[in-house]
Amino acid sequence: MSKLLIVGTVAFDAIETPFGKTDKILGGAATYISLSASQFGVNSGIVSVVGGDFPKEYLSKLNKRNINTDGIEIIKEGKTFFWKGKYHNDLNSRDTLITDLNVLADFNPIVPESFRDTEFLMLGNLHPSVQMGVIKQIPNRPKLVVLDTMNFWMDNTLDELMEVIAKIDVITINDEEARQLSGEYSLVKAAQKIHEMGPKYVVIKKGEHGALLFNNENVFFAPALPLEEVFDPTGAGDTFAGGFIGHLAKTEDISFENMKRAVIAGSNLASFCVEKFGTERMEDLTHDEIQERLLQFKQLTQFEIELS
Amino acid sequence: MSKLLIVGTVAFDAIETPFGKTDKILGGAATYISLSASQFGVNSGIVSVVGGDFPKEYLSKLNKRNINTDGIEIIKEGKTFFWKGKYHNDLNSRDTLITDLNVLADFNPIVPESFRDTEFLMLGNLHPSVQMGVIKQIPNRPKLVVLDTMNFWMDNTLDELMEVIAKIDVITINDEEARQLSGEYSLVKAAQKIHEMGPKYVVIKKGEHGALLFNNENVFFAPALPLEEVFDPTGAGDTFAGGFIGHLAKTEDISFENMKRAVIAGSNLASFCVEKFGTERMEDLTHDEIQERLLQFKQLTQFEIELS
Repeated sequence: MSKLLIVGTVAFDAIETPFGKTDKILGGAATYISLSASQFGVNSGIVSVVGGDFPKEYLSKLNKRNINTDGIEIIKEGKTFFWKGKYHNDLNSRDTLITDLNVLADFNPIVPESFRDTEFLMLGNLHPSVQMGVIKQIPNRPKLVVLDTMNFWMDNTLDELMEVIAKIDVITINDEEARQLSGEYSLVKAAQKIHEMGPKYVVIKKGEHGALLFNNENVFFAPALPLEEVFDPTGAGDTFAGGFIGHLAKTEDISFENMKRAVIAGSNLASFCVEKFGTERMEDLTHDEIQERLLQFKQLTQFEIELS
Repeated sequence: MSKLLIVGTVAFDAIETPFGKTDKILGGAATYISLSASQFGVNSGIVSVVGGDFPKEYLSKLNKRNINTDGIEIIKEGKTFFWKGKYHNDLNSRDTLITDLNVLADFNPIVPESFRDTEFLMLGNLHPSVQMGVIKQIPNRPKLVVLDTMNFWMDNTLDELMEVIAKIDVITINDEEARQLSGEYSLVKAAQKIHEMGPKYVVIKKGEHGALLFNNENVFFAPALPLEEVFDPTGAGDTFAGGFIGHLAKTEDISFENMKRAVIAGSNLASFCVEKFGTERMEDLTHDEIQERLLQFKQLTQFEIELS
């Protein structure tokens, strides 16, 4: 069983959607990624930082799912990163109301000794200098490095971001970010430009419109499962990334054919994430539910057609 | 070989996109639908109306593709329907600059004797009273009736539209129109509501984001082919509809499994339509090109995954 190291935020989120609102609940990119990847039984660990206000029971939730939290530094006198957001009626856009970086402002990541030989590395959405800091602590290059990032880093730390992008295998970004990063409107052309920056694989997330996987020669598309209700989109992108790398770490196969399955696995997990607030649905999700929905993905996409 | 009757506009279009502009060129829903369906070698005919200004050579273009134009009434002293539109930079939205109904204003459709026994009927986007007029001229109910419509008729002639919707088998509309017609934001719920209005099958077109096919029990998704360049989206929806019903008319099989293939066939044809201005690409399209792109659709969507 491969090791999977995940760097990213572990945070408090306060979320408001048309269906309700929460107080501070467990959130953060590394939280969602690790919960999603844990469905594949991989040996995963998180590198992150929280404050003295972070409940021990949240760490226990992760440990119970076999997620190693030794790399989550606890700064007793500090406060945990806090994000508050409000979704618009269509759930496709949101306003950020509060971003309190707190202990994240001076985060100096330290990879635990036991994960310095990780085969799979997931760089969750964070300051590129933190992502680079983690890459540099791993002496032998992992089998696969996946990067998630966002427009904020393109706007503010593009040079550092480009250095990270040059060192990774797979980038996952949304369609608008792919256009911003490449300067191309066509996603096909955007993926080509991003390949030239380093990544052999480009995953473009389109939310309710699915996800595209590109390498230099091929393209694959996974739809989002059409749902009767989307309750809270928070964490869907991270859950997708966690399912993607979780599947790859479990199967230890990084061929394009297997990456197709990884994209489906990620879309599958993300379809559950949005059904309840925060991490709630991901915490009680069962193997059987995932398998059943995988069958739905097959029915949704598979067809027989004869070429004549 | 089944007969396919198509009712819809035959028109002049003037189009402006970020890539160029045209004078008055051949356009109209029935034109695009029939050109697309002609790829399946079906015995098709159009019911429509044009003015004395409509060039004979445009009719010849259709006839050469085995499209019967006996049902296109020519009103010598009248002028042909004219639409002028300008696409925005992202090609996803457009402004209508001119809509001159001309001879379409008083259109009284007459189904030619030779098509009153048609097995397949395609009601292209038009006034619902015209669509109903055609339904009533066909004594034995066709094997399959497909309706395309748009928000304009929902806004202005909803009662008449609902009477047509109650009589058809398949409706094809875009996502915003499905939401408007049903009052539901979720497309899954929207499709359920629209089923209750009559149609056993609901096709929701999402443009560059693909198309969904629903019946009461199943859902299938066909992506749009990711293209390097989209040149002119005019007629893509009609071309999709023409490929959909063309495939069904050729195979004479209206099972859900075959409708999946029909949705893929429609998406395939539409992916060519947008590559050049107006009908240009559809006129020189070959069987081999279509087959080659069908293979691309398979590679784009098909995956092997084991359920455990």
